[in-house]
Amino acid sequence: MSDAAQDMDTPLTEATGNNVRWITLNREKQRNPLSLLMLNTLIEALDRAGADPSVRAIVIAARGPVFSAGHDLREMSQGDGEGRDSQIARLREILDTCSRMMLGIVNSPKAIIACVQGTATAAGCQLVSACDLAIAANTATFCTPGVNMGGFCTTPLVGIGRNVHRKHAMALALTGDAFSAEDAVRFGLINECVPVEFLVERTTELAERIAAKSAQGIRNGKADFYRQIDMPIEDAFAYANEAMVRAMTSADAEEGKAAFFEKRQPNWGDA
Amino acid sequence: MSDAAQDMDTPLTEATGNNVRWITLNREKQRNPLSLLMLNTLIEALDRAGADPSVRAIVIAARGPVFSAGHDLREMSQGDGEGRDSQIARLREILDTCSRMMLGIVNSPKAIIACVQGTATAAGCQLVSACDLAIAANTATFCTPGVNMGGFCTTPLVGIGRNVHRKHAMALALTGDAFSAEDAVRFGLINECVPVEFLVERTTELAERIAAKSAQGIRNGKADFYRQIDMPIEDAFAYANEAMVRAMTSADAEEGKAAFFEKRQPNWGDA
Amino acid sequence: MSDAAQDMDTPLTEATGNNVRWITLNREKQRNPLSLLMLNTLIEALDRAGADPSVRAIVIAARGPVFSAGHDLREMSQGDGEGRDSQIARLREILDTCSRMMLGIVNSPKAIIACVQGTATAAGCQLVSACDLAIAANTATFCTPGVNMGGFCTTPLVGIGRNVHRKHAMALALTGDAFSAEDAVRFGLINECVPVEFLVERTTELAERIAAKSAQGIRNGKADFYRQIDMPIEDAFAYANEAMVRAMTSADAEEGKAAFFEKRQPNWGDA
Repeated sequence: MSDAAQDMDTPLTEATGNNVRWITLNREKQRNPLSLLMLNTLIEALDRAGADPSVRAIVIAARGPVFSAGHDLREMSQGDGEGRDSQIARLREILDTCSRMMLGIVNSPKAIIACVQGTATAAGCQLVSACDLAIAANTATFCTPGVNMGGFCTTPLVGIGRNVHRKHAMALALTGDAFSAEDAVRFGLINECVPVEFLVERTTELAERIAAKSAQGIRNGKADFYRQIDMPIEDAFAYANEAMVRAMTSADAEEGKAAFFEKRQPNWGDA
Repeated sequence: MSDAAQDMDTPLTEATGNNVRWITLNREKQRNPLSLLMLNTLIEALDRAGADPSVRAIVIAARGPVFSAGHDLREMSQGDGEGRDSQIARLREILDTCSRMMLGIVNSPKAIIACVQGTATAAGCQLVSACDLAIAANTATFCTPGVNMGGFCTTPLVGIGRNVHRKHAMALALTGDAFSAEDAVRFGLINECVPVEFLVERTTELAERIAAKSAQGIRNGKADFYRQIDMPIEDAFAYANEAMVRAMTSADAEEGKAAFFEKRQPNWGDA
Repeated sequence: MSDAAQDMDTPLTEATGNNVRWITLNREKQRNPLSLLMLNTLIEALDRAGADPSVRAIVIAARGPVFSAGHDLREMSQGDGEGRDSQIARLREILDTCSRMMLGIVNSPKAIIACVQGTATAAGCQLVSACDLAIAANTATFCTPGVNMGGFCTTPLVGIGRNVHRKHAMALALTGDAFSAEDAVRFGLINECVPVEFLVERTTELAERIAAKSAQGIRNGKADFYRQIDMPIEDAFAYANEAMVRAMTSADAEEGKAAFFEKRQPNWGDA
């Protein structure tokens, strides 16, 4: 971890070790809200990590007992004397920026792992759903409590609803209840939960193993997975096969085959 | 429960308590078949519950050892001396009415919970899949036995196939076997199973908690969830964000925020 | 099992018992690679089984400790002195043939069960995903290790990604790790796992029970399931209802109803 982790003025901190970039939400006291500032800072951090050849896997983590409480309700509320149109324009900007951040995770050229140490609420729960993989402490909880505030977590359900079965998505959305990490594993929202004292160790191990793979293979493979999954199956096969031809004749595939037949570690190209 | 529960002449009974409407299939001896009469009565009951401002959540339950055995096979069979065209016209009417009932659940402005006390078969199993949430007794079973009758539960699989993974849908459809409530939980077809003696209590508790939420939030949120889930993800975000702007500036959202900051119970608008 | 099982020269063997056709990958020493020869032989075997009226269910099994290691890497590699265009043409042919084989399973008129006795890798894992049902030995493992070779299992993920949740698909693809049969059950990639000594017995029992059903019902029902599952729900209902009308007025449905009301075993039409 770099010194940046100690900078308490930044909405998030960034640190890199063994080719893994840790992006850590750093507004513990405010429960790591996805404010406009946080969202824009995250977008920039993801872009930077995506473009940095020394970064081969990304972890999104958070400090404190809360992973993220979702949007900043005060920022979204109508200000004293503020017109409705002005509030609506701000809501649109926040929500649009939030979607761009979530799609930035999906479209990132690097694999992204959510490391969930505490409560993941609303857009914070959606953040977990947007990542490629997720590991949580067994003390973490997951909820979409918009329904408790007179609304509904409609946008979070875009991501969550593409991670889990409908009955589970509706249980989260209609009750607004906090579900356990074990439930989240059962739903498919996260990959595993571990005792909280092993969370960073286990996430580091997974991220470093992925960072040791071909960055080229992951960049193309991740993009192609999310693209083909919404196609009819025949189109998906045709699309994927062309991607496979490119992948199997790529520089990293040549290196991979050579290393395999020579029984040595591969030397992959840049990330 | 109202007196209606004791009216043994009606295909179903309706009773309301604490803003929860219980719609109970009432053809125990016939195994609660989804006859044309039952389907039309259900459509009317769902419409009535949807429009009734005193109803803030709906439970679909059943009397007897069977939740519903699905269509009435005798009603669907060719009558003595009946022409094939006449039978086909009746089959179309029954199936079309059945789909309208199932879509009426999906499109209802209220959250709908299946309370499954016994066997849910074919269209009866589809009825469980159509509800937003489902709780079953641990003695309940689930099956799609069309394949045992020379056919296939093709229409039930429309609903079930949108609730569970393909291998599980095909296991139900190809074997026609009765699967346990534990299996149904594992598949994602139902949310939970409880000892039969706690089924009504647990369903009541869940329904009343949902009934205490904003009806406006649920009405819009439920409709938006089922609409966005079939869209490409970028379209889904754009659609959901506009829904969120409306939700966050709604009367119930204003009340929700006020109650939250004033640390009091919200007073939601009408259902 | 027929004598064919002892023919060690064929890429696969075929044997039929009690209306179940066992198609068994027979390249144990080479780890049952899906070479062009194996793929074309499989396509022919599936076509033959699909057209054979004595076959009412199909099992795809394999000999040795490996179910299938996926494509033959040596066959896919650039040959000594071979031009890149020539290699790409061969890759296209292999991948296109592989997709045709996988779609041949999906489009087969018979139910197809994967009987997974050992490691299922890459396209071998995809082969499991393409089958309607899958049973594995509890010692079997599942992996998509393209990422370890500088690529990504993009095409296998077409099938696997339509069997399991996204986080599970990405865990397989990004780590390249071997997942246990218990994990595969949890993901929904396979239906069940059993002690290895019961694998053939359990698969036989399941296949024979399906073989005793109406072949007509399964042929139409299977095709209709995979067709409607990609439609919007309203279209799916309309499509499925017309299929149901045809199914319920079919010869096998008449026989099924007659047998049901006469409390006797049905005599189904030909497969």
